[in-house]
Amino acid sequence: MNQTFSIAMIGGDGIGPEVVAEARRVLDAALENEDATLRYTAYSLGTGHWLETGETLHDETLEKLREHDAILFGAVGADPQDKRIPSGVVERDLLLKLRFELDHYINLRPTRTYPGVSTPLAATDEFDFLVVREGTEGPYVGNGGSLRRGTEHEIATEVSVNTAHGVQRVVADAFNRAASRRGHITLVHKHNVLTHAGGLWRRSVEEHAARHPEVSWNYMHIDAATIHMVADPQRFDVIVTDNLFGDILTDLAGAVSGGIGMAPSASINGAGTAPSMFEPVHGSAPDIAGQGIADPTAAVLSAGLMLEHLGLNGAAGRIERAVITQLSEWAERSAGTALGTAERGDAYVSRIKT
Amino acid sequence: MNQTFSIAMIGGDGIGPEVVAEARRVLDAALENEDATLRYTAYSLGTGHWLETGETLHDETLEKLREHDAILFGAVGADPQDKRIPSGVVERDLLLKLRFELDHYINLRPTRTYPGVSTPLAATDEFDFLVVREGTEGPYVGNGGSLRRGTEHEIATEVSVNTAHGVQRVVADAFNRAASRRGHITLVHKHNVLTHAGGLWRRSVEEHAARHPEVSWNYMHIDAATIHMVADPQRFDVIVTDNLFGDILTDLAGAVSGGIGMAPSASINGAGTAPSMFEPVHGSAPDIAGQGIADPTAAVLSAGLMLEHLGLNGAAGRIERAVITQLSEWAERSAGTALGTAERGDAYVSRIKT
Ligand SMILES: CC(C)[C@H](C(=O)O)[C@@H](O)C(=O)O
Ligand SMILES: CC(C)[C@H](C(=O)O)[C@@H](O)C(=O)O
Repeated sequence: MNQTFSIAMIGGDGIGPEVVAEARRVLDAALENEDATLRYTAYSLGTGHWLETGETLHDETLEKLREHDAILFGAVGADPQDKRIPSGVVERDLLLKLRFELDHYINLRPTRTYPGVSTPLAATDEFDFLVVREGTEGPYVGNGGSLRRGTEHEIATEVSVNTAHGVQRVVADAFNRAASRRGHITLVHKHNVLTHAGGLWRRSVEEHAARHPEVSWNYMHIDAATIHMVADPQRFDVIVTDNLFGDILTDLAGAVSGGIGMAPSASINGAGTAPSMFEPVHGSAPDIAGQGIADPTAAVLSAGLMLEHLGLNGAAGRIERAVITQLSEWAERSAGTALGTAERGDAYVSRIKT
Repeated sequence: MNQTFSIAMIGGDGIGPEVVAEARRVLDAALENEDATLRYTAYSLGTGHWLETGETLHDETLEKLREHDAILFGAVGADPQDKRIPSGVVERDLLLKLRFELDHYINLRPTRTYPGVSTPLAATDEFDFLVVREGTEGPYVGNGGSLRRGTEHEIATEVSVNTAHGVQRVVADAFNRAASRRGHITLVHKHNVLTHAGGLWRRSVEEHAARHPEVSWNYMHIDAATIHMVADPQRFDVIVTDNLFGDILTDLAGAVSGGIGMAPSASINGAGTAPSMFEPVHGSAPDIAGQGIADPTAAVLSAGLMLEHLGLNGAAGRIERAVITQLSEWAERSAGTALGTAERGDAYVSRIKT
């Protein structure tokens, strides 16, 4: 039985299309001897597309995207120097719109060190943890406003909205993931200040902990969590946290693990009512776009997460192992930094094929 | 003319009283040949006091505190294992109440490396920046609520409140500080998502920048700021940011600069309508309390910030120089870690006296 999956491919802006192209080659290699085929449909979206057509994300495009089994995403975002593009428009009307409309309530950001790949930390101990970030609530709901804007009496508010429905489902997912990892969960919040939202999160974790005696858990304030991420990241297994704290912690995690260029992510609709999306944590990096020097590793690893999500665990494992082996080989001969995008893609492809 | 300043001294819980005692000895030494005298009044506050008396911070106590010229604060907070103390009660009803009631709108957290003192970062470049955190607004206003609590329909909200008044005054202060430092400001926010609050902050910085041609500025999202804090903290001079982002960034800053045990802070009422407060960033560390091993450096440096605030710049400079010289001497003979609280205090005192 040959399974066919239909994949929406959104390269986006800057280095996005470059890294996604390599991810696709790696996917094809990983599936060569599998009874599974990916069929790609490319969608042009992002700031470039917006400048040309005025579309950030039309409802018709969204409806088409819904029909796919998964979305492979590069990166979007304008050159900050480009004054034609209003700040935040593609972020909100495209990226966040996708997360909210497709109900991507589980934002997964696995973080690990790779043998031989240096990190900015002096300590060289390895670590491997998973951040499960909520993706559809918190301060990201766009529920703010301003009054007397531009006057000395201006008031601007932002409302963080948190529901039992929204918190329970992501906490449940985090416990399941912890159970199949090292069995530990850290809830990160700021419940000494944000008492209402923090209370809801905390009670939700307590309830799930009662149902999962095999999983231990602890609580950490977001400020303290940044200290531990720098001082002893080994202590983390699964971190579950809200949308904004997750945003902050995962960039920090990317930094301490050796570079945001290697950090993959998955935005998952755990109920299966819409396609999930897989994308590097890094942005569109307009400063290095078009030069063929962007590191495709994060996109390749995100593609691996996509295969895992589609149930193609064998192929997913091949991608991950190829990346790990190749990165450590490059590290041994100090070659990593000088390599181009395609050269890296080639190397991953041939590792998979051997 | 001998000036006399009246100082409220709040040791608090855990290691708080231990480190404040050393700070006081250092203050006395620094003022020995100055025409200035500090008169101390001790206040018993914190979780220990709450357990004994039921007081977190009575209005009468607050009124007495208002009469002082400054407040020297240790740390408060219960042992997390101690189930008699409801989570967050001293944080909100004492610490945050002081900040809000005394209108401590400028929360200063200078961060620097010290020669010879190691940091968790592999790169050994020195850095020296100042975080100016807003202290009376943002998500800290306690403006949240919950509905259908404890049911599957629970909704919990937290409202971040930001006013032109509140933002302008702290931004103005940050520009003044930048002008007397290296002349650069970084605004940290998340205006691509928190558009209303972020817009107010951004416009406020733009307006002040127009009045300060000698100060350059840039903008950074909070998530990106955590990356730079780990990757190239040298790039920062003055960071101005909101209450929650400042909380997160300054713990991270404390961590990357070589330990939260050395990070001082000042909560300043810039209008002079109430006393400002000076305290270490670290907490009460119940696990090491009473053993005489807590590092008093952060408290000593906070005391130095207090002298500066009182206009006693000569004495303030003596404290800072004593700490720097002493830390690098300890580092040279790798002695730092084994020293006790009083031993460190002694060393700072004798440095100042020579
Ligand atoms: C681009 C931005 C809206 C987004 C976020 O804040 O979630 C990004 O930082 C991320 O982490 O995916
Ligand atoms: C104790 C807590 C309320 C406080 C804060 O969040 O401001 C602390 O973390 C700080 O940074 O001073």
